[in-house]
Amino acid sequence: MWTSDAASQQLGMKLELVAPGRAVLRMSVTSAMINGHGICHGGYIFTLADSAFACACNTYGETVVAAGADITFISPARLGEELAATASERFRGGRSGLYDVTVVAGTERRLVAEFRGRSRTLPSAPKPALPDRP
Amino acid sequence: MWTSDAASQQLGMKLELVAPGRAVLRMSVTSAMINGHGICHGGYIFTLADSAFACACNTYGETVVAAGADITFISPARLGEELAATASERFRGGRSGLYDVTVVAGTERRLVAEFRGRSRTLPSAPKPALPDRP
Amino acid sequence: MWTSDAASQQLGMKLELVAPGRAVLRMSVTSAMINGHGICHGGYIFTLADSAFACACNTYGETVVAAGADITFISPARLGEELAATASERFRGGRSGLYDVTVVAGTERRLVAEFRGRSRTLPSAPKPALPDRP
Amino acid sequence: MWTSDAASQQLGMKLELVAPGRAVLRMSVTSAMINGHGICHGGYIFTLADSAFACACNTYGETVVAAGADITFISPARLGEELAATASERFRGGRSGLYDVTVVAGTERRLVAEFRGRSRTLPSAPKPALPDRP
Repeated sequence: MWTSDAASQQLGMKLELVAPGRAVLRMSVTSAMINGHGICHGGYIFTLADSAFACACNTYGETVVAAGADITFISPARLGEELAATASERFRGGRSGLYDVTVVAGTERRLVAEFRGRSRTLPSAPKPALPDRP
Repeated sequence: MWTSDAASQQLGMKLELVAPGRAVLRMSVTSAMINGHGICHGGYIFTLADSAFACACNTYGETVVAAGADITFISPARLGEELAATASERFRGGRSGLYDVTVVAGTERRLVAEFRGRSRTLPSAPKPALPDRP
Repeated sequence: MWTSDAASQQLGMKLELVAPGRAVLRMSVTSAMINGHGICHGGYIFTLADSAFACACNTYGETVVAAGADITFISPARLGEELAATASERFRGGRSGLYDVTVVAGTERRLVAEFRGRSRTLPSAPKPALPDRP
Repeated sequence: MWTSDAASQQLGMKLELVAPGRAVLRMSVTSAMINGHGICHGGYIFTLADSAFACACNTYGETVVAAGADITFISPARLGEELAATASERFRGGRSGLYDVTVVAGTERRLVAEFRGRSRTLPSAPKPALPDRP
């Protein structure tokens, strides 16, 4: 799934780690991500967190999508800083899951945002019917 | 603020309306926004909603930033669809505010996401002290 | 469902209006609801909003439960004040729904809290199998 | 603060642990807490979590209030079950804080809900002016 994720690739995200229910992604803040306040647009911070969430919750061989998420912005991210998003599973059961993602900046790992994503597992695609034998 | 918002401009967002506590933004889903499931990455839907929220809450001459937000994804957005985000103020008082943003797709205005943003007004920059006169 | 809701009844909640996707409930702040800061415990404000949400989303003849909710506390509620919670449907589709509840206090309708609830419709109970005939 | 919290006391909550940024509270589900679906009203689960959050964030000698919270309900709580809410600090800085509270039921510690609370520290009360000397 990651290799076909044009959105995440084009933002320069790098997948550092993926394991059952966990993922770490990195992304540098580029000039295209700067908003009218001169800092990284919160949408890009959310996008990084959301990609880490998607990687973490799609580690079980089923198709899982984001039903929703909440993000708290804690400190601004600046041009040129490298952000790291670490996703970990808080709960998975039935068709639902809950994942926490922490976004930090720079080598000092300054806290930038805390994200909590709610996932839903899609029903498996029905198996294709066998073709009629002649 | 909008004219200096490189992040929103580069995504092709168009500001259709801005009024006290309200804003409408439009954006088309491009191939760069498509994720590993073949649909628009939720991060870009959030980014559009977050920009509409920023426009709506910065209509009073003070600097207002996003403290956090919650988004519920309702239906996927597809390549080529035009999205419209309508932000409206639910509450503003003290240094806090709450804004609802609805994102719809296409001419049929299919509901794509509901977003609720929490704002904080920054303290006014202190006036520079007058230089000591000799 | 309302008549068998001991929790809501025992708190003195009164159902003022119920219609498809909508409900209005009222509750007075009693001394049992006061917290260590001398104001109404946020849990009771949430409980009132959650009951209004439950009434609004259970108006379609199916069993609907709360999957989650977000609440923003805006002003404190005080001993003796009457609170009114107005729930309205923002979205309903598939097995999901989203409901906004506004809680106000007193005759001046001072804004106390804004709540957004996420609902899930439970699958219908399977019909009992017919007993084997002898 | 805990000893004057009538709301929490009257629900039978017991404070098991309090430490800087942390708290554990327990509460049994009584018949007064049962809703129209025959399970514990989500409002009481929220109230327990909210009390644990308040205990955890008021451990620094300043007055801290809940600005808002999000809760995800995972499994129902039943009559007679004992619930335990464990609050831990995820972030504290400036006047803001973020606290996670996990609510479990019974000796098997079945997961009931995940709560995330957003706190605000109130400005210190201004020192009373010295009385005018005669």
